[in-house]
Amino acid sequence: MSPKGLEQLLRQIQQGRVTVPQALHRLRSMPFEDLGFASLDHHRSLRQGFPEVVLCEGKTIKQVIAITRSLIKKRDSFLATRAEPATARAIRRLDRRARYYADARVVAVTLRSQKQQGHILVVTAGTADIPVAEEARVTAEVMGSHVERLYDVGVAGLHRLLGKKDRLFKAKVVIVVAGMDGVLPSVVGGLVDCPVIAVPTSRGYGASFGGLAALLTMLNSCAAGVGVMNIDNGFGAGFLAHRINLIGLKG
Amino acid sequence: MSPKGLEQLLRQIQQGRVTVPQALHRLRSMPFEDLGFASLDHHRSLRQGFPEVVLCEGKTIKQVIAITRSLIKKRDSFLATRAEPATARAIRRLDRRARYYADARVVAVTLRSQKQQGHILVVTAGTADIPVAEEARVTAEVMGSHVERLYDVGVAGLHRLLGKKDRLFKAKVVIVVAGMDGVLPSVVGGLVDCPVIAVPTSRGYGASFGGLAALLTMLNSCAAGVGVMNIDNGFGAGFLAHRINLIGLKG
Amino acid sequence: MSPKGLEQLLRQIQQGRVTVPQALHRLRSMPFEDLGFASLDHHRSLRQGFPEVVLCEGKTIKQVIAITRSLIKKRDSFLATRAEPATARAIRRLDRRARYYADARVVAVTLRSQKQQGHILVVTAGTADIPVAEEARVTAEVMGSHVERLYDVGVAGLHRLLGKKDRLFKAKVVIVVAGMDGVLPSVVGGLVDCPVIAVPTSRGYGASFGGLAALLTMLNSCAAGVGVMNIDNGFGAGFLAHRINLIGLKG
Amino acid sequence: MSPKGLEQLLRQIQQGRVTVPQALHRLRSMPFEDLGFASLDHHRSLRQGFPEVVLCEGKTIKQVIAITRSLIKKRDSFLATRAEPATARAIRRLDRRARYYADARVVAVTLRSQKQQGHILVVTAGTADIPVAEEARVTAEVMGSHVERLYDVGVAGLHRLLGKKDRLFKAKVVIVVAGMDGVLPSVVGGLVDCPVIAVPTSRGYGASFGGLAALLTMLNSCAAGVGVMNIDNGFGAGFLAHRINLIGLKG
Amino acid sequence: MSPKGLEQLLRQIQQGRVTVPQALHRLRSMPFEDLGFASLDHHRSLRQGFPEVVLCEGKTIKQVIAITRSLIKKRDSFLATRAEPATARAIRRLDRRARYYADARVVAVTLRSQKQQGHILVVTAGTADIPVAEEARVTAEVMGSHVERLYDVGVAGLHRLLGKKDRLFKAKVVIVVAGMDGVLPSVVGGLVDCPVIAVPTSRGYGASFGGLAALLTMLNSCAAGVGVMNIDNGFGAGFLAHRINLIGLKG
Amino acid sequence: MSPKGLEQLLRQIQQGRVTVPQALHRLRSMPFEDLGFASLDHHRSLRQGFPEVVLCEGKTIKQVIAITRSLIKKRDSFLATRAEPATARAIRRLDRRARYYADARVVAVTLRSQKQQGHILVVTAGTADIPVAEEARVTAEVMGSHVERLYDVGVAGLHRLLGKKDRLFKAKVVIVVAGMDGVLPSVVGGLVDCPVIAVPTSRGYGASFGGLAALLTMLNSCAAGVGVMNIDNGFGAGFLAHRINLIGLKG
Amino acid sequence: MSPKGLEQLLRQIQQGRVTVPQALHRLRSMPFEDLGFASLDHHRSLRQGFPEVVLCEGKTIKQVIAITRSLIKKRDSFLATRAEPATARAIRRLDRRARYYADARVVAVTLRSQKQQGHILVVTAGTADIPVAEEARVTAEVMGSHVERLYDVGVAGLHRLLGKKDRLFKAKVVIVVAGMDGVLPSVVGGLVDCPVIAVPTSRGYGASFGGLAALLTMLNSCAAGVGVMNIDNGFGAGFLAHRINLIGLKG
Amino acid sequence: MSPKGLEQLLRQIQQGRVTVPQALHRLRSMPFEDLGFASLDHHRSLRQGFPEVVLCEGKTIKQVIAITRSLIKKRDSFLATRAEPATARAIRRLDRRARYYADARVVAVTLRSQKQQGHILVVTAGTADIPVAEEARVTAEVMGSHVERLYDVGVAGLHRLLGKKDRLFKAKVVIVVAGMDGVLPSVVGGLVDCPVIAVPTSRGYGASFGGLAALLTMLNSCAAGVGVMNIDNGFGAGFLAHRINLIGLKG
Repeated sequence: MSPKGLEQLLRQIQQGRVTVPQALHRLRSMPFEDLGFASLDHHRSLRQGFPEVVLCEGKTIKQVIAITRSLIKKRDSFLATRAEPATARAIRRLDRRARYYADARVVAVTLRSQKQQGHILVVTAGTADIPVAEEARVTAEVMGSHVERLYDVGVAGLHRLLGKKDRLFKAKVVIVVAGMDGVLPSVVGGLVDCPVIAVPTSRGYGASFGGLAALLTMLNSCAAGVGVMNIDNGFGAGFLAHRINLIGLKG
Repeated sequence: MSPKGLEQLLRQIQQGRVTVPQALHRLRSMPFEDLGFASLDHHRSLRQGFPEVVLCEGKTIKQVIAITRSLIKKRDSFLATRAEPATARAIRRLDRRARYYADARVVAVTLRSQKQQGHILVVTAGTADIPVAEEARVTAEVMGSHVERLYDVGVAGLHRLLGKKDRLFKAKVVIVVAGMDGVLPSVVGGLVDCPVIAVPTSRGYGASFGGLAALLTMLNSCAAGVGVMNIDNGFGAGFLAHRINLIGLKG
Repeated sequence: MSPKGLEQLLRQIQQGRVTVPQALHRLRSMPFEDLGFASLDHHRSLRQGFPEVVLCEGKTIKQVIAITRSLIKKRDSFLATRAEPATARAIRRLDRRARYYADARVVAVTLRSQKQQGHILVVTAGTADIPVAEEARVTAEVMGSHVERLYDVGVAGLHRLLGKKDRLFKAKVVIVVAGMDGVLPSVVGGLVDCPVIAVPTSRGYGASFGGLAALLTMLNSCAAGVGVMNIDNGFGAGFLAHRINLIGLKG
Repeated sequence: MSPKGLEQLLRQIQQGRVTVPQALHRLRSMPFEDLGFASLDHHRSLRQGFPEVVLCEGKTIKQVIAITRSLIKKRDSFLATRAEPATARAIRRLDRRARYYADARVVAVTLRSQKQQGHILVVTAGTADIPVAEEARVTAEVMGSHVERLYDVGVAGLHRLLGKKDRLFKAKVVIVVAGMDGVLPSVVGGLVDCPVIAVPTSRGYGASFGGLAALLTMLNSCAAGVGVMNIDNGFGAGFLAHRINLIGLKG
Repeated sequence: MSPKGLEQLLRQIQQGRVTVPQALHRLRSMPFEDLGFASLDHHRSLRQGFPEVVLCEGKTIKQVIAITRSLIKKRDSFLATRAEPATARAIRRLDRRARYYADARVVAVTLRSQKQQGHILVVTAGTADIPVAEEARVTAEVMGSHVERLYDVGVAGLHRLLGKKDRLFKAKVVIVVAGMDGVLPSVVGGLVDCPVIAVPTSRGYGASFGGLAALLTMLNSCAAGVGVMNIDNGFGAGFLAHRINLIGLKG
Repeated sequence: MSPKGLEQLLRQIQQGRVTVPQALHRLRSMPFEDLGFASLDHHRSLRQGFPEVVLCEGKTIKQVIAITRSLIKKRDSFLATRAEPATARAIRRLDRRARYYADARVVAVTLRSQKQQGHILVVTAGTADIPVAEEARVTAEVMGSHVERLYDVGVAGLHRLLGKKDRLFKAKVVIVVAGMDGVLPSVVGGLVDCPVIAVPTSRGYGASFGGLAALLTMLNSCAAGVGVMNIDNGFGAGFLAHRINLIGLKG
Repeated sequence: MSPKGLEQLLRQIQQGRVTVPQALHRLRSMPFEDLGFASLDHHRSLRQGFPEVVLCEGKTIKQVIAITRSLIKKRDSFLATRAEPATARAIRRLDRRARYYADARVVAVTLRSQKQQGHILVVTAGTADIPVAEEARVTAEVMGSHVERLYDVGVAGLHRLLGKKDRLFKAKVVIVVAGMDGVLPSVVGGLVDCPVIAVPTSRGYGASFGGLAALLTMLNSCAAGVGVMNIDNGFGAGFLAHRINLIGLKG
Repeated sequence: MSPKGLEQLLRQIQQGRVTVPQALHRLRSMPFEDLGFASLDHHRSLRQGFPEVVLCEGKTIKQVIAITRSLIKKRDSFLATRAEPATARAIRRLDRRARYYADARVVAVTLRSQKQQGHILVVTAGTADIPVAEEARVTAEVMGSHVERLYDVGVAGLHRLLGKKDRLFKAKVVIVVAGMDGVLPSVVGGLVDCPVIAVPTSRGYGASFGGLAALLTMLNSCAAGVGVMNIDNGFGAGFLAHRINLIGLKG
């Protein structure tokens, strides 16, 4: 039953053409989702301030474009992750506002007037962790957060990290991206007092098992206050960091 | 909003005390679950013919009894699984109709007038698989299915199974319970033409890894038409077999 | 011993040319399979209404064609799964009735007069799960089941699923195909009261471990009545769903 | 070099008894930690508002008491987790303000004057997940957060969760605790727009592998914005939730 | 159909009371196992020279006794493995000939007149591997093989093994039992030219993962000619070694 | 010390130019390997009747040729496994007697006069298991065993296997090669009374985990007397089967 | 052939009672181990300065005592690891010099005159890692190394470690013992320039999987120069550290 | 605060322009890293005698060159590992002194005047392990150690190893590189009395699981004194061996 149908039913009651028991019966069997969930969904997008995000991996370019076409036109902002250059070019043909962040493999449309607020810090252990970190950064920025970067400060040279502790202390949320032994989030978590989001990367070899070693390190972190994301899930980290950052903005 | 509240609202429209736009607004923000899901839930129990089942494992006896008290009184049938003897005794103190099936670790109240219909066959590879098989059997019987048993017919002595192929061919659904190498469902699945539900058991040692070996064997079964349950999940197998058996009864 | 040989032996007894003990001795050592299993096998294909299915993966095109040649000619229907386009073309050169379902990677010959009966619903969580779902759909359809589709209704937008609950409630069997977290079968299983077949897909990244995460989710489903297939095993799901669907048709 | 030693050195410069180059040399080789990190550490406890927490598991009662003795006296608040009743009694003998939360296995001293602020919601799928949820709740409360509970709303009866969506929407942070298939955080994450902390529990059997299945489900969650904790790590979840909740309070 | 029934049918043909087509029809539907497999089974026990073996683990004493009662009386030899002392005592109450090998956890009745033939050598890496080795030894001896022992010759002191190479070279089959790193079968396999059966044991700690490390070492052995058994499966090793040893005896 | 050196030393004793204590001292520190192990090695190749085998996988063509050059010239027989066509061509350029078995990926030189003796049967579950089975067959044949084949008799059509049980009963050793669920060795092991060598193959998909599922099935086989090889290790199976077959020939 | 036998042979050559070719033949077939390896073994114990060590775990007290009796009497030092109190008491009844280190579960006899040399530092992350660290310490001390301790300096409070960097810099070898996330060896390895031996402990819960997480962290350590031991293998770490420490002493 | 800033502060105290309490306050909040860690870092590179090493894997050529440019110019020695030929060529364009070791995939600049000291022995089980062994060798040589090689001495032909035991006994540290079953380090560890560094390689197939089998073998080694590196980590082994070798040189 569409909202129009509902309105019609109510008018029929008003006009005495449908009795209350008849209306009750029809309302009770009414598919709730047309009424309730559509509004719920609307409510969600209003509050979240961001539409569905397109994960390009595992989809053909054709499928990505079909989904994008319906999303990108009616929105001021848009995000597609894990986009290969060819996919990115296809999206840009749809909408020239779209920008491709090659390192992050992200295509995004950002509302020009949007002011980036709060303070998220993205930290990486090594150079090879940067693509995942960039996916996190672009995601959070497109959604409206202010993001800073502190890359290549792994514990093999602990002084590189300790020398930047001021920057760590200023952030509202810290995302720590690390592969191989995945040790950095434990060390950062022992220094800061804000929420830490740990992202293991698949970087490494041998017994790193595609990021499993780093993942387990982070899940078992001795430092409390560390939430862990899936391996290489930069998008998820950026998204969660943005949500946490928002709390500070909303008070 | 309760059904009463809804009726009241509709009457107010009828009486002109609430305008249609006002009513629309109130209906749209109405918690759908009070209206929609309560009836949905009701509908489900009507169709399923069976209330919630209590899994005793991981709950204290006190918790089990608290949950059971509210369920067992208003129903004609009841099921609690993984019940140790002490838990069973406590449930029986609540309701004398309850019967404890010690092998199956199940406590059940069965509607006396219920006729057991259809035809489920429960097969085990070995003697040690019987507790899981019995959990499946009692579950399906309490729900109203007719269940037969064919135990200890593993492939180490293939003639034991082949000698009973008539019984295999008569069933509407076959549940096959096996530990160690978990081979039996593949062999049964190669013989029958009805749905086969495979249940790995944790029986075995060494590289059986608590039932993992049998589980993987069953998931990779060369015989098509085999659906797999969690390790030792006799209840789930009995429940699914009953649902499949029901289809034949309802036509 | 062929049926002819058996008949000859019986006639020799009748004619007094072989004594009963002699005949007993010869019968006891008679290879049972020539007698018993050949008919058993015949019986199976009669009841199942479908010949052996060819899994193309792991076979050379030459091997597939050799197997197909002997199967496809004498049958009204035929099924080959995991067929790459080149394999499909080779099969179609053998028999022009064969049709290639590219999404499903299935080649099939369907009996024209066959009426599709019953009601199977195939549900997917995401777009990337569609190839596995299509393998299930084509399999069940070629075997004679009526199949409907409900794709891309994952729980990240729960209203998409809830808005279609009527379609869920109408099915006799539901196949739920999902990758990544594999959550959808638990949610569907909590809504419907018919058998649910869960198929994990290898879609995902990082700690999805090629579908292992989704597989474990489904095996541990809190919703009872869910049977699980191997990762990406659309064929098996379609086959099992068809067998369950058949029960309803046969009564 | 202690602060006193540093003061002495500075006075010697002032008094001309040590030249600047001599002082520079001594300062450069001065153990920085006595100067820098002691204050850093002090700074951290000031900002975090909470001293070190004692994990009792894996320690003897004697060890726990030795550590506790030095912590509990000089603080207004205190927390010991995974405490068996005997450990709890021993701590209470040290300080009568300590209270034992048996469900949560936590011993805590809470500052009386402390006002609980913000809004954390702790949700569980089942009854057996409650101990882990309670560890999270007590942890966050002792640290100063306002915590509410919504227990036993797993997806096997989806309406139980949907019927409480108002409570979900009001929270600043949601902790979702679930064992077996670990599905609930994905469903909650698809409904709310605040940060979600997912905690897998070791509850389940067979292929739940002591919580591994639930852990993988949560790491692969289709719903963005979900940070995952180690299996059964209620303390970590409460701690992280409190830190996130604090951001909203500090603005 | 029993052999008696078959004889009766043949006589009825002979006497003209049943026609050949009638008999053919009855024979074709005759359960083949009564005819074919019973004799097959008989044939197997004749050739194997040993009846079914009882695995006590996972069975109650009551179940073990019920199975044993029917086996032990009509045979000259008997074997029950993984028998705890209480089970052993119960079996000995049934039949005083039964002997309990406590190290091997085996209960056996051995035909007195049986001559032990051939030559099997059982080797262990350490003292803690002896129970598994003894299970293998008793199994093979009870079945009729001559077995020698060479225990505690692990590669940590390679000279212990090399000093006994004459004994290695004399065996027809070598069983090598090792836990921890499971290295010994590779070394033995590089020295001898007879079949080697490798048995990993669950002895070890940490990353031995209950015998998994030793199992993998043996499966990947650089020395060709090594067949691997399940972890702790002494019985299987003794059984296979006996079968191989038999080949030499039968020519 | 070379044999010549030893002879010289002994002559010096004989001639009184070296005292016995002096000789003892020199002999005790003599590198045993020059004396003892060289002959041991010689002894081994004499008894084994076959020189070192070249595993081509993981070596460059250049490395393979360097190793082969020194082996192939001085021998009547030669074996190289896992050889790609290019490697095979390079070996054949060295020695025209070499033959490439493309299915088995084996290059071999077989002594013409060699008579193939004994009786090994190689069985496969499916068509895709044939390459591994052929590696086993060629290995055993080149070493001098008589080998027969029984391919594509998996349990999905159990009658195919049972119809050939005569061939199973005639073999001295049976090699069973199977992927996916790896069920066939258990079924064959329940039928025959000779040693069974089980070889899992990496054929399968999803939860077959590259042959791990089949490997675990075989290690946990309910049928006693089954020795297991590494995944896809056809060479090892052929080698072990030949060694077992030899025992029967040598008596 | 014993040394006496060899001497006799040489005398026979000297006396002309045995020809050189006869002697050569007998020497060539002489079991090398009596000659070569016995001396080798002797050589090893001379150089290593320590006899065989008894691992008590997995052995009965009776077995431990039987092995100990022959070792402890003829030596000045002795070591038994993983000894429960009852085992320790039994060993002390054999030899009153034996001392039980309860924390380390080690029984040792140490040569009184032995001077402890060099400098090994044993570091632990937490209190619960101490038993493993103590096993390492006692092992290295009994063998003759000077060992210092630095316990409970995990990275959750990084200043505790950094405040002791002088002690880290003084050591010749550092053993780092850590459970849970196993992060400490990476941090220590990034600070020091001597060899680091990392020992994961089984301490932790959930996804620590009995020390697997810590083990993987250490194997993947970003800090070069870290060698890893098995989980909980304090003895192995102490032994290896002692060997490295010795190099410095021997020059 | 830079060293200059510190000097200025001290002069201000000297001149009476800053009081001691003021200076104390400023020093306490002084970023320690500018003072402490910079010198620490300097100290480390002085003692270690070797700058940061570049791991090329997982970095683009552009990134490698950017990092290399700043390192290679100001140093006498340089090391880049896992360098593909194209990367090597790009580095050599930067600095003609750089040499590419193709087997080891290492690019290195070695100080000409450097004398290679001590004695490291690198041993491999097979030909396919050589690349990892060469990475270890080149690493240790570039750092200044004298390294010898003993390749292809796996235990399948144990005499090859035993025949070289003199070379084993001469080394100060032995690196043992092995794939497949990873048995060699246990055997070498049972022979020598110096530290052994074990490196598993990813060479093998099937259940070698990319080196996991060899890794577990080595971690569980029965021979004490074996430290284990990550799979294929030749660099780490060479680095650790060099550090151990250094101890002997420094006394």
